Amino acid sequence: MSETDAAQPTPAALGVDVGGTRIKGGLVDADGVLLHRLQRPSPHREAPADQVEDAVVGVVHDLTGIARECTDHEVCRAAGSAPPLGVAVAGWVSARSGTVLFAPHFSWRDEPLGPRLTTRLDRGAHVDNDANAATWAEHRFGAGAGESDLVMVLLGTGIGGAIVREGRLTRGRHGLAGEFGHVRVVPDGLPCPCGSLGCWEQYASGTALLRTALDLIGSGGADTSGLLARCGDDPARLEGEDVTRAALDGDPASVGLLAGQGRWLGLGLAGIVASLDPGLVLVGGGLAEAGDLLLGPARATLAAEVPGRPYRPLPQVLPATLGPWAGVVGAADLARHDT
Amino acid sequence: MSETDAAQPTPAALGVDVGGTRIKGGLVDADGVLLHRLQRPSPHREAPADQVEDAVVGVVHDLTGIARECTDHEVCRAAGSAPPLGVAVAGWVSARSGTVLFAPHFSWRDEPLGPRLTTRLDRGAHVDNDANAATWAEHRFGAGAGESDLVMVLLGTGIGGAIVREGRLTRGRHGLAGEFGHVRVVPDGLPCPCGSLGCWEQYASGTALLRTALDLIGSGGADTSGLLARCGDDPARLEGEDVTRAALDGDPASVGLLAGQGRWLGLGLAGIVASLDPGLVLVGGGLAEAGDLLLGPARATLAAEVPGRPYRPLPQVLPATLGPWAGVVGAADLARHDT
Repeated sequence: MSETDAAQPTPAALGVDVGGTRIKGGLVDADGVLLHRLQRPSPHREAPADQVEDAVVGVVHDLTGIARECTDHEVCRAAGSAPPLGVAVAGWVSARSGTVLFAPHFSWRDEPLGPRLTTRLDRGAHVDNDANAATWAEHRFGAGAGESDLVMVLLGTGIGGAIVREGRLTRGRHGLAGEFGHVRVVPDGLPCPCGSLGCWEQYASGTALLRTALDLIGSGGADTSGLLARCGDDPARLEGEDVTRAALDGDPASVGLLAGQGRWLGLGLAGIVASLDPGLVLVGGGLAEAGDLLLGPARATLAAEVPGRPYRPLPQVLPATLGPWAGVVGAADLARHDT
Repeated sequence: MSETDAAQPTPAALGVDVGGTRIKGGLVDADGVLLHRLQRPSPHREAPADQVEDAVVGVVHDLTGIARECTDHEVCRAAGSAPPLGVAVAGWVSARSGTVLFAPHFSWRDEPLGPRLTTRLDRGAHVDNDANAATWAEHRFGAGAGESDLVMVLLGTGIGGAIVREGRLTRGRHGLAGEFGHVRVVPDGLPCPCGSLGCWEQYASGTALLRTALDLIGSGGADTSGLLARCGDDPARLEGEDVTRAALDGDPASVGLLAGQGRWLGLGLAGIVASLDPGLVLVGGGLAEAGDLLLGPARATLAAEVPGRPYRPLPQVLPATLGPWAGVVGAADLARHDT
């Protein structure tokens, strides 16, 4: 963070996080504090590309209006009519050109989102991958502050990931680095929506947790009353979060499911650590709320499986701390720093 | 490469590559040309750590003598009595401190090789991992020249690897990045000397090629006469190189074995590309001599398995070009640049 004259506060920046379910936006100060926020439902998967763009522009307009009229924060007013703008997208993004190569939840294909927003909004827009944005936020203001070499994995519907090296995001040649979720961990394994078989996210994501829970209920081989109590005895209504909550409440079957999930997590992390040797691994996304029920088994598996043991130092494996608005915070901060 | 005054040529640097079988050394000019070279057998695995160090010092002394007395190259004489010294080691090296954390072929454990060489030789020594050194050489002078973001894998007894990002080696927090050979590709798969099961090097290294060839001979299920002809009908005498040579001569069984090996190679590369998105992938080590018999199937598998297809650009997959002395060339060049 640059030192600034007290009389000229660093203006708030505007971050937008375009996810499959929600578009979130916020005004963020130079310390990563979210001063104002709003969210809208995302357009449906088949909506025309323009419609998603319109939704983003709407969020930007509304937040810019809030900034202009804010009476609580000098840094909002300082942002005036054109705060620095960062947009995080659930998809494959070339940050250099601001192009969305592919977004699984939308019809964006090779979409020059950055240039189009720049034209429509009459200002520059930094467009990036959502996992990059969330990881950048954790590196700047969260669990990764002070660590210049870290990897983060985000466990949700799928698995996102990003890499920070020497204090900068490592995006790769085309902006697509960090897609750990689609590293194959089982030959001819479970089918993945990406078209491959055996991708890591089929074993260690929130979706995988729900699948293993339903398998366990279906098998009848364990006492799953704790799980069934959470969905009114209707497995079709069970959600991944129910399993996490049941485990946190001590339900033995759910604790076991999270431990199995943690072992898959640790196995994938062992490959990441062998390849990248980060100083710190952060685990974010909804599933990270399980805390040590998930991370304990993950750490044990990582320590047992990483090559070079026992002669090598191991990275810490810690939960991310900024929660579901990290993407907004990171997008806003990247708009300022554009690393 | 820095511009130098024609009257003051950049002195030759001295590179040493400490492998499990041989210790190689060479004097290398600023363009990566190997001006003088020599090699010695490596001390055996149980030899005291001092003995390996003595052997390295012996190579350095001999090459320094050659430099002093060289009448062919001005840059050798310019190197005088203390040419810049780089040492590449088959093992886990913290390049920052010059410490060998672990070397599978020697008794070095947490060995401060760099500081010890500095004391004994009265000059600085850059110590690095051998795959890092070979990859650096390819990046500077070989198949990777002009590409600032690349990954190299070296297929030999095991699989080594290294990463160049923005024109610099990416070593990771502790110097241990690039150990792709020990990423697990098969749960509960083949045992690896590292202590894990299912490591990539058990499926895509030269050792793996030999194993699959012996399995094929043992199975009796294919015409393996082309292979048996290379080992005097004694499978115990078959070597991995025999399989490669038989394939290059058109032996169908050997071509099939290399194709299978190439698919495992491509599968692992798909994970590397998903994680790192490099601009170029180089394949080195003895097995790379199979050329397109190996790399063709590898490229096809990579293209089929990498996530984001068909919306993402793919890196080229090319053979390394500097051969088995690349480690010496890279070690010498790293001693000059120490990136």
